[in-house]
Amino acid sequence: MQERTEISTLGEFGLIDHLTKNNETKNSSTIVSVGDDAAVIDHYGRQTVVTTDLLVEGIHFDLMYTPLKHLGYKSVIVNISDIYAMNATPTQIVISIAISNKFSVEALDEFYEGVYAACNRYNVDLVGGDTTTSQKGFIISVTAIGEVAPDKYVKRDGAKVNDLVCVSGDLGGAFLGLTILEREKKIFEETGAQPDLENQAYIVGRLLKPEARKDVIEYFAEHNIVPTSMMDISDGLSSEMLHICKQSNVGCVLYEDKLPLNEDSKEFAYKLELDPTACALSGGEDYELLFTINQADHEKIDKNNGFSIIGYITEAANGKTFITRGGNKHPLIAQGWNPLK
Amino acid sequence: MQERTEISTLGEFGLIDHLTKNNETKNSSTIVSVGDDAAVIDHYGRQTVVTTDLLVEGIHFDLMYTPLKHLGYKSVIVNISDIYAMNATPTQIVISIAISNKFSVEALDEFYEGVYAACNRYNVDLVGGDTTTSQKGFIISVTAIGEVAPDKYVKRDGAKVNDLVCVSGDLGGAFLGLTILEREKKIFEETGAQPDLENQAYIVGRLLKPEARKDVIEYFAEHNIVPTSMMDISDGLSSEMLHICKQSNVGCVLYEDKLPLNEDSKEFAYKLELDPTACALSGGEDYELLFTINQADHEKIDKNNGFSIIGYITEAANGKTFITRGGNKHPLIAQGWNPLK
Repeated sequence: MQERTEISTLGEFGLIDHLTKNNETKNSSTIVSVGDDAAVIDHYGRQTVVTTDLLVEGIHFDLMYTPLKHLGYKSVIVNISDIYAMNATPTQIVISIAISNKFSVEALDEFYEGVYAACNRYNVDLVGGDTTTSQKGFIISVTAIGEVAPDKYVKRDGAKVNDLVCVSGDLGGAFLGLTILEREKKIFEETGAQPDLENQAYIVGRLLKPEARKDVIEYFAEHNIVPTSMMDISDGLSSEMLHICKQSNVGCVLYEDKLPLNEDSKEFAYKLELDPTACALSGGEDYELLFTINQADHEKIDKNNGFSIIGYITEAANGKTFITRGGNKHPLIAQGWNPLK
Repeated sequence: MQERTEISTLGEFGLIDHLTKNNETKNSSTIVSVGDDAAVIDHYGRQTVVTTDLLVEGIHFDLMYTPLKHLGYKSVIVNISDIYAMNATPTQIVISIAISNKFSVEALDEFYEGVYAACNRYNVDLVGGDTTTSQKGFIISVTAIGEVAPDKYVKRDGAKVNDLVCVSGDLGGAFLGLTILEREKKIFEETGAQPDLENQAYIVGRLLKPEARKDVIEYFAEHNIVPTSMMDISDGLSSEMLHICKQSNVGCVLYEDKLPLNEDSKEFAYKLELDPTACALSGGEDYELLFTINQADHEKIDKNNGFSIIGYITEAANGKTFITRGGNKHPLIAQGWNPLK
């Protein structure tokens, strides 16, 4: 039988000690870490970048098919992805959790195993947090801190007419992963049949264990590229593209045949009679980077297989246009996820 | 009748626009504020201080007697209090909320009115956050960022033998405020009688609308004092004192007759047959500062009426001692609030 230690046996400070006992700092910018009123960070002449996200059980994740270790990992990833989306490097996180008494110390250990795994992989220090009780479910709040050389950060409002619109990796996979997990959950609830996810490792992994595109930011630095605008794709490509257009006061043209889709994603979409293009446009949670570059940087991007040039920026008056494989023009519409609807 | 606008009519981004439409930045360190993947901060050669807190309805606050505006104010205060406790100056916050659909836009406006009031009073910029749905109740996560001249921050681990133990303001008020509100809530639930809080403005105010001790940090700077250790009193004096002793590896002696109590607090404690000393030792949420100073700074502290010298630091081997008015010695024990028990 699995061991179960009640959290109340440790108390708040005992629990914090337990969860942070192997926590080692990796960044010279971390001056004071866990264990005081606040952490102290010295970015030594660099600018500090801050972002935060709140993840709520039943809204953002379903523990029925989300292993706690993956959840811990993803909680870090979704935040540091926003730091990379500023062309910055994440350096620290603080993480707060609220838990009901259904969680044991062992369950939290699993969650933190994922948190630390992400911190190690991305060279980020866990420097603080808060641990408390919830009335219902598991609530996770992560704030990520990063650094950037002065004025090298990239906002959403700098896209210029004729810039190329680019995206890293492939799109729609996480949404398809969610679709299969929700389908298998329903089957399990109705029939008790164990889910068969054997052949869907790619799309399920895209949802449950996403990665942040550290390598993209490193590629930019190596090749002396500063995108004119950038954001990470959490709500869906079309939604994010419209944000960039609105904040940059420009329009855009995107091409269906340029959208990057993974073969496994396409195959599974067809199996479910879903339009792969719709999945790529509106499926969220891929945590790829959407960015615009000056045409002068075209070659630097084009020679990297990990990037797709999916369109270009136009005058605002030309609107936001999506051109299908057949050559039809449609207005680009956001149908991404809205947690408040 | 009060207006009620459903949050779903605005959607996530509409709601964010609505809540931040009058948000103006006050600090030159705020380079990029709300509206991008992350905020950008430049502390220009200073160190960055970060702290976070999670507040959960039903655990940390009761909306039956907590006005939303006060809750917004307090959510900011409890966080920036931790920044002051590092001898630092708060400069930015990010705030995330999860809400059930019982909340209207007007209710959130009230909450944010309090958030902005605190930001204005303490010269702090709201630079980001997240807004989402909860399964139950109102959940608030605030991360506060501050700045401090390099190496001027004050931790909990620097208390030295013979240092004086000092505290700002008075203690126990917030706990007594909570006691009366809980009592009146019970009476209301049982009899329908409206609460009578007329004469308890001080203690109720201590709970519902605490302030952070900005003035104390400013006094330290003016008088060239750097405490040897410091923390804010959120869980109760004895609990915090034990943290300082543990982290500094020292003991202490505290005197009952030196504990600062407000007259209203004492009077109300007697009325409820509570021991005012116990309220001062174990009552949390006063957000006063507990700090230790070198004896050489004695006069600088002594001449300020806002401070009380309540004891001194000893060798660790001498233990943690509390001396009563009658001269009896007791071990100092933490009976503060534990959200996980």
